[in-house]
Amino acid sequence: MKALILSADNFEDQELFYPLNRLKEEKLIVKVASMKKGTIVGEHGYSIKVDTTFDDVVPDGFDILVLPGGKAPEKVRLDHNALEIARHFFDNGKTVAAICHGAQTLISAGVLEGRRATCYIAIRDDLKLAGAIYEDREVVVDGNLITSRHPADLYAFGRELVKQINV
Amino acid sequence: MKALILSADNFEDQELFYPLNRLKEEKLIVKVASMKKGTIVGEHGYSIKVDTTFDDVVPDGFDILVLPGGKAPEKVRLDHNALEIARHFFDNGKTVAAICHGAQTLISAGVLEGRRATCYIAIRDDLKLAGAIYEDREVVVDGNLITSRHPADLYAFGRELVKQINV
Repeated sequence: MKALILSADNFEDQELFYPLNRLKEEKLIVKVASMKKGTIVGEHGYSIKVDTTFDDVVPDGFDILVLPGGKAPEKVRLDHNALEIARHFFDNGKTVAAICHGAQTLISAGVLEGRRATCYIAIRDDLKLAGAIYEDREVVVDGNLITSRHPADLYAFGRELVKQINV
Repeated sequence: MKALILSADNFEDQELFYPLNRLKEEKLIVKVASMKKGTIVGEHGYSIKVDTTFDDVVPDGFDILVLPGGKAPEKVRLDHNALEIARHFFDNGKTVAAICHGAQTLISAGVLEGRRATCYIAIRDDLKLAGAIYEDREVVVDGNLITSRHPADLYAFGRELVKQINV
């Protein structure tokens, strides 16, 4: 199985690296996509090499989409290719895991209508306006969609993410 | 089951939080001990509340010991209570997982004679002088002892750590 992470500079470091390592634990191949190749740097100074760009991604080749938070999603959500990738995962019922501000990309992709979800508290009103049913819990699982609020929820986010792999 | 993390200020952030969240995923109770109560801050600016002090820890109550890296182990290794805790885990064959500079605490505790282990490359000679058989691999498992080199090995470190829980 293969997982795809969409992110950019100023990602929330743990929210990118925890699912990355957690999925590698399960022997998945994990690729990082961004607007351009090179290296992206997190808010806390960790960096990671970008494997592919949003316009080069062939989403058919991936089983799981991960959307970390931080300030990165405010850039990711402006890229129409990134939004197309997100829609592909929803259209095909494939697992999408978004934490914190990661949900901003899903709001812009227009895929949250009627879905139960959570996010960073400061964007909960945006989530609701996008048609989602907001829940203030460490992790919310609604079919293919897994969402969490912030880094302290990573243990629950990881647990639910891995359950989806083993379905 | 319960796990204990020994650390201090300037811990390597991912090396503390990855095993912490990973063990919480498995529903373990995880406690953080340091020289004094309050909050400790990592090299990358993440912080965590200290649950207990080295002199208050009753190691009988714990099943797994985790030693993250960063600059913290240079402080931890100077605390005789911390070294006694480490020796307790070895004397009782309980799981000890050390990553990066975390091995410095084990060197000072004098528990590595004849053991296969790895660590951050810059301290490999210290590890050898302490009697360990150094291996340059992402994770080395020798009985109760699990060691890794640096944050990029966390996926392998976590995988082996969890295997020990389920024994």
